[in-house]
Amino acid sequence: MAKLLVMYKRPADPESFDRYYFGTHAPLAKKIPGVQRYDVSEGPVLTPAGPAPYHLVATLAFGSMAALQAGLASPEGKAAAADLGSFAQAGVDLCFFDEKQI
Amino acid sequence: MAKLLVMYKRPADPESFDRYYFGTHAPLAKKIPGVQRYDVSEGPVLTPAGPAPYHLVATLAFGSMAALQAGLASPEGKAAAADLGSFAQAGVDLCFFDEKQI
Repeated sequence: MAKLLVMYKRPADPESFDRYYFGTHAPLAKKIPGVQRYDVSEGPVLTPAGPAPYHLVATLAFGSMAALQAGLASPEGKAAAADLGSFAQAGVDLCFFDEKQI
Repeated sequence: MAKLLVMYKRPADPESFDRYYFGTHAPLAKKIPGVQRYDVSEGPVLTPAGPAPYHLVATLAFGSMAALQAGLASPEGKAAAADLGSFAQAGVDLCFFDEKQI
């Protein structure tokens, strides 16, 4: 299974962010071909020292790295990426990788 | 389900890192009370623009935030945290959060 981690830095207006994220962006991201599971953080994102610099962490799971990369390259993947400019002005850290259970 | 994300920055010597991580650190981290699932990235950690600053991403899943925080505060959690100094000199970004599927 391959994972796409999307970590959103803390926005100026968290309520507006959440309204846009759940009302507009998540439905767009769900359309990316190959997404098998979509999880989001609920409540604060923490570190052992206190609040993390992130407001929300999303994890999208795909069957393989090939499926993930095809999903990102698809029209739906490009639309979701382009939509980040509509609400993630505070910044977003994004990475993806294949994963195994140990 | 609550998740602990541990993102290891790229080490000077990836082979030594991996040997220590899988031979010593992961067995210590597995002893943390409440760990229900332990996944690690396999192969490169990427971004759309190329390699991510991370060599390895570990995800430890717990039944709840309370269980996760109790695990980190346990002797086994403190031992795993202290062990980071043995091999993660390049730095590590760590965060944790409750999670829901959408």
